[in-house]
Amino acid sequence: CLTIGIPRETADRERRVALVPEVVRRLRTAGHEVVVEPGAGLAAGVSDAAFAAAGAALGDPWDADVVAKVSPPRDGEIARLRPGTILVGFLNPLGDPDGLAAVAATGATALAMERIPRISRAQSMDALSSQATIAGYRAVVVAALELPRLFPMFMTAAGTVPPAQVLVLGAGVAGLQAISTARRLGAVVTAFDVRSAVKEQVQSLGAKFFEVAGVGDAEAVGGYARELTAAEQEAQRAALAAQMARSDVIITTAQVPGRPAPTLVPADAVAAMKPGSVVVDLAAETGGNCALTRPGETVLTDNGVKVLGPLNLPSEMPEHASSLYARNVLALLELGFDFDDEVIRGACVVRDGAVV
Amino acid sequence: CLTIGIPRETADRERRVALVPEVVRRLRTAGHEVVVEPGAGLAAGVSDAAFAAAGAALGDPWDADVVAKVSPPRDGEIARLRPGTILVGFLNPLGDPDGLAAVAATGATALAMERIPRISRAQSMDALSSQATIAGYRAVVVAALELPRLFPMFMTAAGTVPPAQVLVLGAGVAGLQAISTARRLGAVVTAFDVRSAVKEQVQSLGAKFFEVAGVGDAEAVGGYARELTAAEQEAQRAALAAQMARSDVIITTAQVPGRPAPTLVPADAVAAMKPGSVVVDLAAETGGNCALTRPGETVLTDNGVKVLGPLNLPSEMPEHASSLYARNVLALLELGFDFDDEVIRGACVVRDGAVV
Repeated sequence: CLTIGIPRETADRERRVALVPEVVRRLRTAGHEVVVEPGAGLAAGVSDAAFAAAGAALGDPWDADVVAKVSPPRDGEIARLRPGTILVGFLNPLGDPDGLAAVAATGATALAMERIPRISRAQSMDALSSQATIAGYRAVVVAALELPRLFPMFMTAAGTVPPAQVLVLGAGVAGLQAISTARRLGAVVTAFDVRSAVKEQVQSLGAKFFEVAGVGDAEAVGGYARELTAAEQEAQRAALAAQMARSDVIITTAQVPGRPAPTLVPADAVAAMKPGSVVVDLAAETGGNCALTRPGETVLTDNGVKVLGPLNLPSEMPEHASSLYARNVLALLELGFDFDDEVIRGACVVRDGAVV
Repeated sequence: CLTIGIPRETADRERRVALVPEVVRRLRTAGHEVVVEPGAGLAAGVSDAAFAAAGAALGDPWDADVVAKVSPPRDGEIARLRPGTILVGFLNPLGDPDGLAAVAATGATALAMERIPRISRAQSMDALSSQATIAGYRAVVVAALELPRLFPMFMTAAGTVPPAQVLVLGAGVAGLQAISTARRLGAVVTAFDVRSAVKEQVQSLGAKFFEVAGVGDAEAVGGYARELTAAEQEAQRAALAAQMARSDVIITTAQVPGRPAPTLVPADAVAAMKPGSVVVDLAAETGGNCALTRPGETVLTDNGVKVLGPLNLPSEMPEHASSLYARNVLALLELGFDFDDEVIRGACVVRDGAVV
């Protein structure tokens, strides 16, 4: 039996909390203790009383065996870690090696949610996916709010309004959810991904998969995609630019762990969009997929296009984001801390004071 | 052949414009002249150049035979009207009799879009409906943005998130569109209307029609709904309060022309809602259907519920709102100004200097 500590998150824009009452109840039933810092759930709509009613104690979470967080700990928090404590959370291991080294210096052990292996046994712990799902959904809601047009086709007695044209770049978890949500709202959706293997998934959601005739068709050579030729790259670039100019909304989702996001939407593509159109760049945290993105801001271009670079979108739906995250943490805790287990070994980034 | 003048709207929050280039083009083809005030379309994303390209002249719109507006004219605008000019627009005839009298004093004639008879021949001119459609759609988008939860049910490897519960009060044009949009986004929707005749429409959109067993069933007596007894009213009130407490989102749409909006959501019903829940009150302009609504503001209650009282929601989607409105105006212009025609006679609120 373990004691699990839940600090109040202190990072900018972080409204999530690592456990929610429903999950606290399940941990208590399994015999664990939970200590929640007062106010930890407030931004997610969870009162101290709700945590207490679920069986949590209110107090100092940093003395616990396991400290579960959402965002990476700040310096003041790292100083609270003790030898042997197990820290669980998003730890940005590729983007913040100094942070990891500081955690290691405390003698603690740390499991990064980003490093949970993407194997089927660990799906229930996959917090990157659960949070990306929320980001993809919210990107569409934000776009629908910003667009001066309607998403669905409207047929009225005075005439018909055509449906919005939405382009989704990158069909990972966030991209697929964005496709699904934009389709639900009635938009015509086109999606592009360098991995043509996702074509069927995209189509099953009712979207068009963006392809250029003759480009990339040879991918099956040896089972691997081949690099596009220069001529093919240019043909694809030009066709994508034309698709962007036709789009009312572009949602970009292409991130590469530990590296700056690739630029997929150049400035001239934005300049060719209609006034009022909207770009939502879900890669803003790593620099953005659009050349005009300013992380955390909304850029209004000279031609009247809004380029949004939201940071931490899941945190803007903190109740369900926390609920899903807490279930990911629960699944990890239920697995136990067997460091010979493939999942725990994969997630472990600091072990007994050393970065691994 | 007429000259039609399009002023730049000056009312607070008014981003719409009474004509759009597509409609200007059709008027020009029919032989009419259109004079657009410079900047009239900017807030709706329509440049002066776009109007000019469609055949409009840029200049003083107040010398035209017909002046088409969206919002009621302000004092400075009324002073620009001349004897014989025909003013067309939302004129708030029931809410602003002084405004109408001032229009009459100029010797102008005025047609109120609110007064277009709701007969099938005039459907294409029904701007109240076209704008209510947009308001209903946008109310749901705003609610989805404010809610810290997701609208659709999410099934993830870590567990399931239930769909949002949405309650729509009033199943007119705005309410039906809100129902439809919330259903699209995956919510479970319940709708209430005192007119049980709309039950089938509500159900055809996939929503539940709120009814209390035994209440109102006797409506068919003599073909008229009978007044509910005191006991029935209390049973309905209590059942509605329970439904409100279960709701993540309440959207209210009950307006009575020329009278304050009825209070449908009392303060204690909001107090019983879960933290994070959202009320969007589409009747805010006439005082609101929720006791806590403050027109134009968002009220955050002690129990963490947001009560939004948006004003002029269609204006927040100015491109499509203007596009639909312009087609309504076009249909009216195409009818011509035959004051013996039922539609023109119905819409006419000022004739040659007299309020009618």
